[in-house]
Amino acid sequence: MSKVGIIMGSKSDLPVMNECIEILKELEINIQVNIVSAHRTPELMYEYSKNAEKNGIEIIIAGAGGAAHLPGMVASLTDIPVIGVPIKSKNLKGIDSLLSIVQMPNGIPVATVAINGGKNAGLLAGRILGLRDEKIKNNLKRYRENMRDEVLLNSEVKI
Amino acid sequence: MSKVGIIMGSKSDLPVMNECIEILKELEINIQVNIVSAHRTPELMYEYSKNAEKNGIEIIIAGAGGAAHLPGMVASLTDIPVIGVPIKSKNLKGIDSLLSIVQMPNGIPVATVAINGGKNAGLLAGRILGLRDEKIKNNLKRYRENMRDEVLLNSEVKI
Amino acid sequence: MSKVGIIMGSKSDLPVMNECIEILKELEINIQVNIVSAHRTPELMYEYSKNAEKNGIEIIIAGAGGAAHLPGMVASLTDIPVIGVPIKSKNLKGIDSLLSIVQMPNGIPVATVAINGGKNAGLLAGRILGLRDEKIKNNLKRYRENMRDEVLLNSEVKI
Amino acid sequence: MSKVGIIMGSKSDLPVMNECIEILKELEINIQVNIVSAHRTPELMYEYSKNAEKNGIEIIIAGAGGAAHLPGMVASLTDIPVIGVPIKSKNLKGIDSLLSIVQMPNGIPVATVAINGGKNAGLLAGRILGLRDEKIKNNLKRYRENMRDEVLLNSEVKI
Amino acid sequence: MSKVGIIMGSKSDLPVMNECIEILKELEINIQVNIVSAHRTPELMYEYSKNAEKNGIEIIIAGAGGAAHLPGMVASLTDIPVIGVPIKSKNLKGIDSLLSIVQMPNGIPVATVAINGGKNAGLLAGRILGLRDEKIKNNLKRYRENMRDEVLLNSEVKI
Amino acid sequence: MSKVGIIMGSKSDLPVMNECIEILKELEINIQVNIVSAHRTPELMYEYSKNAEKNGIEIIIAGAGGAAHLPGMVASLTDIPVIGVPIKSKNLKGIDSLLSIVQMPNGIPVATVAINGGKNAGLLAGRILGLRDEKIKNNLKRYRENMRDEVLLNSEVKI
Amino acid sequence: MSKVGIIMGSKSDLPVMNECIEILKELEINIQVNIVSAHRTPELMYEYSKNAEKNGIEIIIAGAGGAAHLPGMVASLTDIPVIGVPIKSKNLKGIDSLLSIVQMPNGIPVATVAINGGKNAGLLAGRILGLRDEKIKNNLKRYRENMRDEVLLNSEVKI
Amino acid sequence: MSKVGIIMGSKSDLPVMNECIEILKELEINIQVNIVSAHRTPELMYEYSKNAEKNGIEIIIAGAGGAAHLPGMVASLTDIPVIGVPIKSKNLKGIDSLLSIVQMPNGIPVATVAINGGKNAGLLAGRILGLRDEKIKNNLKRYRENMRDEVLLNSEVKI
Repeated sequence: MSKVGIIMGSKSDLPVMNECIEILKELEINIQVNIVSAHRTPELMYEYSKNAEKNGIEIIIAGAGGAAHLPGMVASLTDIPVIGVPIKSKNLKGIDSLLSIVQMPNGIPVATVAINGGKNAGLLAGRILGLRDEKIKNNLKRYRENMRDEVLLNSEVKI
Repeated sequence: MSKVGIIMGSKSDLPVMNECIEILKELEINIQVNIVSAHRTPELMYEYSKNAEKNGIEIIIAGAGGAAHLPGMVASLTDIPVIGVPIKSKNLKGIDSLLSIVQMPNGIPVATVAINGGKNAGLLAGRILGLRDEKIKNNLKRYRENMRDEVLLNSEVKI
Repeated sequence: MSKVGIIMGSKSDLPVMNECIEILKELEINIQVNIVSAHRTPELMYEYSKNAEKNGIEIIIAGAGGAAHLPGMVASLTDIPVIGVPIKSKNLKGIDSLLSIVQMPNGIPVATVAINGGKNAGLLAGRILGLRDEKIKNNLKRYRENMRDEVLLNSEVKI
Repeated sequence: MSKVGIIMGSKSDLPVMNECIEILKELEINIQVNIVSAHRTPELMYEYSKNAEKNGIEIIIAGAGGAAHLPGMVASLTDIPVIGVPIKSKNLKGIDSLLSIVQMPNGIPVATVAINGGKNAGLLAGRILGLRDEKIKNNLKRYRENMRDEVLLNSEVKI
Repeated sequence: MSKVGIIMGSKSDLPVMNECIEILKELEINIQVNIVSAHRTPELMYEYSKNAEKNGIEIIIAGAGGAAHLPGMVASLTDIPVIGVPIKSKNLKGIDSLLSIVQMPNGIPVATVAINGGKNAGLLAGRILGLRDEKIKNNLKRYRENMRDEVLLNSEVKI
Repeated sequence: MSKVGIIMGSKSDLPVMNECIEILKELEINIQVNIVSAHRTPELMYEYSKNAEKNGIEIIIAGAGGAAHLPGMVASLTDIPVIGVPIKSKNLKGIDSLLSIVQMPNGIPVATVAINGGKNAGLLAGRILGLRDEKIKNNLKRYRENMRDEVLLNSEVKI
Repeated sequence: MSKVGIIMGSKSDLPVMNECIEILKELEINIQVNIVSAHRTPELMYEYSKNAEKNGIEIIIAGAGGAAHLPGMVASLTDIPVIGVPIKSKNLKGIDSLLSIVQMPNGIPVATVAINGGKNAGLLAGRILGLRDEKIKNNLKRYRENMRDEVLLNSEVKI
Repeated sequence: MSKVGIIMGSKSDLPVMNECIEILKELEINIQVNIVSAHRTPELMYEYSKNAEKNGIEIIIAGAGGAAHLPGMVASLTDIPVIGVPIKSKNLKGIDSLLSIVQMPNGIPVATVAINGGKNAGLLAGRILGLRDEKIKNNLKRYRENMRDEVLLNSEVKI
């Protein structure tokens, strides 16, 4: 059964990536979560990426911070879509993470979301899988309607 | 028959978006190209986005520069995947375009590629469609192998 | 009776926009405050902007953060003046909000104030309405004189 | 008869400010253009700003580059609306001009447009004056419709 | 008797400017401290700058934050040296203050020190006055020797 | 006889520093110009700085680009005023030069001017020396008046 | 016996440099730690650098913040490898430190690590010394294996 | 016989890396030059890095631009020193390349030089190898003396 693979360079990225995990569960999408570090476990990253497809993974969501090489490297080792989540870094606030992930050279694309944008990474995966899965598409639609209704209900501000 | 919709805010964005068009043709993916400006034709943008799905569009690739609102706004009006291409701007070199596209708030995701990354936007669309289309997947695989082989053939540099 | 419309993408923007609300009250200008999100309620934004003028709104003040599309989109849907307030964002401190609002392409102007500059947005609206309303103009003049006098009274610093 | 005052720190700013001049003429708005430098002619700037209103000027558009103090200083010397145009600077591409103009402290607002955004400064002045001048409002409306129609006519791109 | 004039846009700048005041006292230099705001009290700024020299002020140290116009404007109204202190701003951490002060156009110089560099502003004033005042020069020399000796005494770090 | 010492890290800095040389000549100030590189000739820099005062140099103007250490290091080796000129760098446009010069730690001040601000460095030296030299002060005054008159003569722009 | 010299501009840099000290101890490399300030003790810096080699120092690791001149200046006074550690600065978060250290002109190299990258500075020194010291090389290898194993053991995240 | 391995992501990086090649030849250091792309040839990069040491390579110099992952990934696959050269990128001038290379997480160090700093990468390799090779050390010393003498000979500038 197909699923989304969520990886991150370090356990310290979990708070951000949990928003991704939560939304994917809410969309009823199967997930598998792993710590895979580009720099500390390059071989694991290699194996993970090379075998992702045959392990039933259809989309990889990779979170990383600083000189964030994980999303781009994974994308260079597979042909399935890779979504990159730039994790806010301690000193440069994630601008280093963002540029390291989004400025990929021609040939290897990474679908980049906002700094700490774990939730949107999940929603993007949902949109991709929703292209052929009515249940996910309906879940997404309902999610978007709920967001809208929540605003509409309280749009007028008493002053 | 399904296709990728390519839109951009202005004809001046065509040189960048042409790289996107070329690669999608090379991957044998159907495309439809339109000028749709968030600011000059907001109604057209609404119509385009609202009707994209029923018009057979599965993925929208939107290029825009400066205060680049097109990709995010389109994404807020549909549930299919939207890929944003930050066009290099005249004065700030595209850093404004990039931040305007990638820093989307939670709820509405845009899959952002590099500044002027038209080609990677096309390849990302290919990876998404390749999830269920063997021909596209094979084309992508061949494309990646060709890139690799081109490097391998000339890896050694005579000095 | 004419008034200023104040909108913001989220309730979390209220602390900043309250400075705007306070100063407009102080200037004796009528206001209407709404939550209108470009991304979560694009249709509401559309309706709000299209009907602003006929609803007696003369100036729209729009606050938004991150990939801040609200002010620019609203400006593209009306011919009345739109003032944009870049809300400080969590990670990039509002530089993304600022660029997303101020770097508008030729054709659609947004009068941008400082990051978190809710108060100045209100004062700017006051200056615009003061062009034909003596009471507002006098209130503005008094406000500026008070600021001046407050400094003058305590200009000398004992050391 | 009322008019818009256009000032700039140096003749070298004219190419950018000419876009402002052209659009104001197109909107049939009276203008008066002066070179007024905050740093080279501070007394002239004081006189100009203090007397603008009684000289029939309703809005001041001020262009300046680098450590761009003209718009903010003028705004501190009058109660009419001041629009600031950050001129692209030679080394830092206008990011210094932008921050020097837009980051005004609470109390003195400057309506800031994009770097080199002379045209939008003119359109913003038009929107303000259009609040009570039907001819200008109609001109603005036509301008926006023309922009729209130009895109609509050529929206479909042959590939 | 000659002295250094210290001005700042707001009382909230005092913590930074106090470092300036302290060091000037330590160097036995006479000072006069005033709140002078470019934007809230432009006329006071005008008077202060125009009359500084005849009031016995030889150097002006001006601290300001955000769109920091005080040092540059003061420098345009006098021929004595003006030292600018960029005050750390709330959102952009003083990069706006720094660029607004240091990027002065040709013709009007401001001697800029580091963000929040109140102490160095005082030391710079000391170096200038020390050119013709042996006591100040000796105080400066002793200050620099003390700094050196403090490091030398504890240079070796036990590990 | 007293003079201003102008130094720069490389002959390639001469075009910028020539503006400094020209204005100092115009102000009738004696100058001495040397190539002194912090990194290629650290000993020369030490000797130059240590002996500047006894060689009759009253102010040192130091231009440098990239990781620009010359002004700060010279300032650490003397007690006379040091003015730093950040030279525009090839890749980062001088923002590296600016930060390397202006962000000096407490204790050692460098009077920093704009990127490529050679002329203002000369004018600042003039203001410092003008404190006790009537001829220089008058030359400065005339220079400022000429700048003003040049603007005043052509302030009105025909349109 | 050969060793690594660790220097820093101020005692306040110790928390960052301690990570460097710890890792070098763990790698069983001899170290000598000193406070050496480029700006407060330029002569000490001169002596330290000139004599480092004859004092048995093979690599110098220099930490500095703000206008960080220590690593580059030391590198200009010796021929042994110099590693620069940009210390996070209070206002600009270390981007000034980084650019001041890494953007060295051609001729004098500094091996720069990340902002606050004390640990990596130590590991880099280890890699250099490991080229001819089997014990260090083995320690490094073990360190890298431990990092890897720590990730591998907990790679799977329960959700 | 030991040598330095020079790799780069693309032939277009050769102009920058040639400065590295030239200086290493001048220092009489053996080199081997290869095109190795992190993204287009990840397997080659793995092989190259894993086998570098047993192929007699003692130091790897890796040049890369944009989202520059090559130096960091290579460093994660070997224990010998890796020097990273950020190649100036087309749109962001190399600030993306620099941050992608230098901001490595703790555990895997990359010795980063300036943007386009090919020559300094070579000189840094020379300093490392010079630790145990007298010929290289002497060549380096002579190189530094020549730089110095070239400045000294022309230090005085006629004006």
